[in-house]
Amino acid sequence: MNTKKVVIIGGVAGGATAAARLRRLSEQVEIVLFERGEHISFANCGLPYYIGGTIEERDKLLLQTPEKMSKKFNMDIRTRSEVVAINRERKTVTVKKLGSDEIYEKNYDKLILSPGAKPFVPTIKGLDKAPSTFTLRNIPDTDKIKSYINMHNPKHATVIGGGFIGLEMAENLHELGVQVSLVERSRQVMEALDFEMAAILQDHIESKGVKLFLDDSVEEVIGQGEMLLLKSGKTLETDLIILSAGVQPESNLAETAGLALGNRKTIAVNEFLQTSDADIYAVGDAIEVKDIVSGQDCFVPLAWPANRQGRIVADSILGKKTSYRGTLGTAIAKVFDFTGATTGNNEKVLQRLGKPYLTAHIHPNSHAAYYPGAKPMALKILFSSQDGSVYGAQGVGEVGVDKRIDVLATAIKGGLSVYDLSELELAYAPPYSSAKDPVNMLGYVSSNMLEENLKTYQWHEVDRFVKKGKYFLDVREKAEVESGMIKGAYHIPVDDIRERHNELPKDKTIHIYCHAGLRGYLAFRTLSQLGFNVTNLDGGFKTYQMAKK
Amino acid sequence: MNTKKVVIIGGVAGGATAAARLRRLSEQVEIVLFERGEHISFANCGLPYYIGGTIEERDKLLLQTPEKMSKKFNMDIRTRSEVVAINRERKTVTVKKLGSDEIYEKNYDKLILSPGAKPFVPTIKGLDKAPSTFTLRNIPDTDKIKSYINMHNPKHATVIGGGFIGLEMAENLHELGVQVSLVERSRQVMEALDFEMAAILQDHIESKGVKLFLDDSVEEVIGQGEMLLLKSGKTLETDLIILSAGVQPESNLAETAGLALGNRKTIAVNEFLQTSDADIYAVGDAIEVKDIVSGQDCFVPLAWPANRQGRIVADSILGKKTSYRGTLGTAIAKVFDFTGATTGNNEKVLQRLGKPYLTAHIHPNSHAAYYPGAKPMALKILFSSQDGSVYGAQGVGEVGVDKRIDVLATAIKGGLSVYDLSELELAYAPPYSSAKDPVNMLGYVSSNMLEENLKTYQWHEVDRFVKKGKYFLDVREKAEVESGMIKGAYHIPVDDIRERHNELPKDKTIHIYCHAGLRGYLAFRTLSQLGFNVTNLDGGFKTYQMAKK
Ligand SMILES: Cc1cc2nc3c(=O)[nH]c(=O)nc-3n(C[C@H](O)[C@H](O)[C@H](O)COP(=O)(O)OP(=O)(O)OC[C@H]3O[C@@H](n4cnc5c(N)ncnc54)[C@H](O)[C@@H]3O)c2cc1C
Ligand SMILES: Cc1cc2nc3c(=O)[nH]c(=O)nc-3n(C[C@H](O)[C@H](O)[C@H](O)COP(=O)(O)OP(=O)(O)OC[C@H]3O[C@@H](n4cnc5c(N)ncnc54)[C@H](O)[C@@H]3O)c2cc1C
Ligand SMILES: CC(C)(COP(=O)(O)OP(=O)(O)OC[C@H]1O[C@@H](n2cnc3c(N)ncnc32)[C@H](O)[C@@H]1OP(=O)(O)O)[C@@H](O)C(=O)NCCC(=O)NCCS
Ligand SMILES: CC(C)(COP(=O)(O)OP(=O)(O)OC[C@H]1O[C@@H](n2cnc3c(N)ncnc32)[C@H](O)[C@@H]1OP(=O)(O)O)[C@@H](O)C(=O)NCCC(=O)NCCS
Repeated sequence: MNTKKVVIIGGVAGGATAAARLRRLSEQVEIVLFERGEHISFANCGLPYYIGGTIEERDKLLLQTPEKMSKKFNMDIRTRSEVVAINRERKTVTVKKLGSDEIYEKNYDKLILSPGAKPFVPTIKGLDKAPSTFTLRNIPDTDKIKSYINMHNPKHATVIGGGFIGLEMAENLHELGVQVSLVERSRQVMEALDFEMAAILQDHIESKGVKLFLDDSVEEVIGQGEMLLLKSGKTLETDLIILSAGVQPESNLAETAGLALGNRKTIAVNEFLQTSDADIYAVGDAIEVKDIVSGQDCFVPLAWPANRQGRIVADSILGKKTSYRGTLGTAIAKVFDFTGATTGNNEKVLQRLGKPYLTAHIHPNSHAAYYPGAKPMALKILFSSQDGSVYGAQGVGEVGVDKRIDVLATAIKGGLSVYDLSELELAYAPPYSSAKDPVNMLGYVSSNMLEENLKTYQWHEVDRFVKKGKYFLDVREKAEVESGMIKGAYHIPVDDIRERHNELPKDKTIHIYCHAGLRGYLAFRTLSQLGFNVTNLDGGFKTYQMAKK
Repeated sequence: MNTKKVVIIGGVAGGATAAARLRRLSEQVEIVLFERGEHISFANCGLPYYIGGTIEERDKLLLQTPEKMSKKFNMDIRTRSEVVAINRERKTVTVKKLGSDEIYEKNYDKLILSPGAKPFVPTIKGLDKAPSTFTLRNIPDTDKIKSYINMHNPKHATVIGGGFIGLEMAENLHELGVQVSLVERSRQVMEALDFEMAAILQDHIESKGVKLFLDDSVEEVIGQGEMLLLKSGKTLETDLIILSAGVQPESNLAETAGLALGNRKTIAVNEFLQTSDADIYAVGDAIEVKDIVSGQDCFVPLAWPANRQGRIVADSILGKKTSYRGTLGTAIAKVFDFTGATTGNNEKVLQRLGKPYLTAHIHPNSHAAYYPGAKPMALKILFSSQDGSVYGAQGVGEVGVDKRIDVLATAIKGGLSVYDLSELELAYAPPYSSAKDPVNMLGYVSSNMLEENLKTYQWHEVDRFVKKGKYFLDVREKAEVESGMIKGAYHIPVDDIRERHNELPKDKTIHIYCHAGLRGYLAFRTLSQLGFNVTNLDGGFKTYQMAKK
């Protein structure tokens, strides 16, 4: 291994990780890290919680300081230093020392780009005239929002964009006693979830008093930001605007240097995370990655990939060529008392790709129902109708969702099918799970579908079927039926099916449903064996009802 | 599929699950379930918590009643009915109706044995004369213990046996305000963990005021149980004795019927869970299973295997032959505020099998340290020194241990190696994890060992090395060193290593250590590249210290 000079642009998740790993691998390599801001290695993901006061000390956000990191890792860290050009022929970067006129060049053997992504700022009439508008990416942004709140004590805030940063900001502002409205262009929050799963979160968010404006957008900012005019014609009086309408790769530097770009102005890289210039690597939020499940190119600006890629690139540069196998898109957000999480492909993606798939919804308890504290969760799985490979999964609930999504992400990584999910021997004692864990249950339900022990219809088909006058059979108990049912459904409690099946038509498809799917499945089993043509509402009335809210 | 008569012996985890699945698969099959007790489908695992009052309603323990289950699944459930013989030639069982003189035969096409395991009762002098002695297996046992406590208001209880039932009973009795002593023959509780991991639990248990007598046993029960004489010579005054010294398979029926037995009087079965008589299947606590990791026969009396096997057997009987691929031994227990969990093989097993392995210990936080509520946990992994396959893992801590063990169990099932653990894309947001999840970290540390970027020594070698006068280097900060260090260690804080390495000997192996392993690793990297002969204490001073307590 030759002594090398590695220059890194960006000193946070991807950049700082690459730097640390480089030094661990080699005491010889010269490491120069340029960071435009004054901080390195800060906890981007903690910023909303510092604003809301959950994280009390600002210092906790700084995982490293330039001084400590330089000393620990013997590296040359230059903050407030923006790289303004990459001079590929000379293998140098041009650096501007911010707050001064100093501009200089620094040469490299290998260059790592980890410039991240910046908040996307939509063009909204009047937005530039509103001094109460903020985006959130780094510590200075955070300080600005915090001091604005301290000085102006806003009564009302509007969050534009319902992605995870928007949701976290809505929650944290609400924690501060601010009335929050959230405006989201699409019909749901947290785009990575499918609609009916996001609907559960939406219901919860509204129950906390946050106003949601879905399928809507801000058309105009009036005055100095005191009033917002929405596309729907509604108006919102507001004292504070948080723009969290997504992020876009910081690829201008790469573009100007003539490096190949991917979709959405991402930096294109090969499996070793090399750009079109073999001496320049790129990692993190700025790059295009391969979706492990679909094989398609995608853009996943999250911390795990940035950290992972940073380490991989350090290995590759120092001779241990390691490929990045792509991104699953595992993501999670705390949304008040709920958790929403996902891994792999969702239904929207599969539909876009035209991939044939099946899906199952279940509503298990987080742990044994008889042990205190068990909470229901909604789990959804998407899998191949051919061979049962798992394409993706989503979970929403109060407790234990993160665990199940991590198990499912691991299963996808291990190439496990839904049949294998039934075989996962997960840790069981009453405070933690059930003897058949929710993930096992996903495996059971899905394999029943593949083996044609169960045929289902989906929540989004119900209204259409009702309109068409299809035959519905409600197998819940009397009390449940009384608090709402599908219009015109016939009612026989599941335990009476064997005695009363002669009341049912043999010449029609019977659309069974129960509360969550299990009793409907039992009725399905009995009736199908009795020669009826049946299908069961996947996820039951609960899934349907959540999506309709 | 012919109409079949299936007889099931035992109506709880394995038996009731098999029965339910049989009916779901076929409306034709005749199902007769015999249960000696008066309850079926009860929550065995909830019993200790009902005694302690965490579970308040006794009814919650009954997941099904014979009446409801008969109706829902159209089956013939006979409680208080003990099968006293299997007449293989006639394909009948002889049944004794308890509380009456009635004895009759019932014929079967297929027979499923799910008789479970019964508490092992060691021969202790005087034990039979102590009316305050109880074992815990079922609801009547529970009622007896509860009413004894209500009537006698014991001040002190002795739990004999530190397996998970013993630990749960110790906790639950303590919750009731009873002073508890726990006597365990081996030198640790929770045998499935390795010693240093169990030690963390032991420390915690003692911090709650429960007295532990490890490496000790009850030699004699004096009087009517008021006094216990221990092997160590110690005596214990006690008002209540809980015997939880392990369980043994209920295989007498099978044995008498001439079915082949395995080790420890388990019922021997093939991969389809058929006994030596092809028409007789056996599942659950009573059978011998294959250890998935080692391929050895073993006995794992837990609820997940019983439930899984019950379902598999129903499938096989109704024509969908399904094999049971063996048991990983994933297990978990809540121990006061801590969780102890394990999957796969532990060090004791690997040593017994003579398998070459490596191990790594880490002490990560349950989630990002800057977000409130993060708690440290101890994680241990065991893996192949040849190819990095994961043999097993253990975790002890307050939060998030169950999640990591489930992920690791899934990884083992998926055949993932420690390298793959680094690639697991787990759900990250600050309340749930870190951008490098603890499981990723296990992957990183382990692959560093395999790639010889890190060489380690173990906690149990320290004292020996000290005695031999080996050279130790403490790289922690001054304040840490002052509160205790390895005798005679030299001290250089990690960040000063590059400046002060000339103080270190080149002719000796330097035994580095820090608090948890990370800083020692950094020092290792620097010093090894400077030509020093170094090794790092795996899991750091923390692991060593815990094991020494
Ligand atoms: C508020 C917020 C909450 C988040 N929460 C989560 C979460 O819960 N979970 C999750 O997985 N992810 C979360 N993320 C995303 C996560 O922080 C990013 O995915 C990750 O930081 C990306 O790492 P990176 O190295 O690519 O970019 P960054 O960490 O953004 O670092 C890039 C750095 O490069 C610097 N830079 C850019 N251009 C130049 C230049 N020309 N010269 C010098 N320096 C330059 C920038 O100043 C910046 O500091 C969150 C992000 C934010 C903003
Ligand atoms: C207190 C306690 C706590 C536990 N906690 C956990 C835990 O947290 N996690 C975990 O994984 N496991 C736990 N277990 C173990 C778990 O309950 C068992 O692994 C599981 O119940 C085994 O199922 P089985 O069907 O083999 O046997 P069982 O569930 O024991 O059922 C066997 C039944 O067969 C009946 N029977 C036996 N012989 C005959 C006969 N000849 N005729 C008629 N009936 C007969 C018995 O009366 C018994 O009811 C716990 C067990 C106990 C006792
Ligand atoms: C702080 C930061 C520089 C640390 O980077 P890092 O040193 O690579 O990461 P960690 O401190 O977690 O240490 C990981 C290393 O310690 C090793 N390690 C961890 N525990 C260990 C133990 N007990 N024994 C031995 N080694 C251990 C790992 O193997 C790994 O080393 P490797 O990469 O050489 O294999 C970087 O994570 C960062 O900048 N983070 C903030 C930005 C960010 O990630 N934002 C998004 C999330 S908020
Ligand atoms: C109560 C008991 C009889 C239930 O057995 P069971 O019916 O097999 O189990 P469940 O009620 O969990 O139901 C599982 C079934 O419902 C199906 N199911 C679950 N949720 C579903 C949904 N939303 N939609 C459709 N089907 C669903 C599963 O596919 C599975 O059916 P399958 O085996 O035919 O595939 C049995 O678990 C028992 O006796 N338990 C107590 C004893 C015990 O386990 N003790 C140890 C732990 S305390």
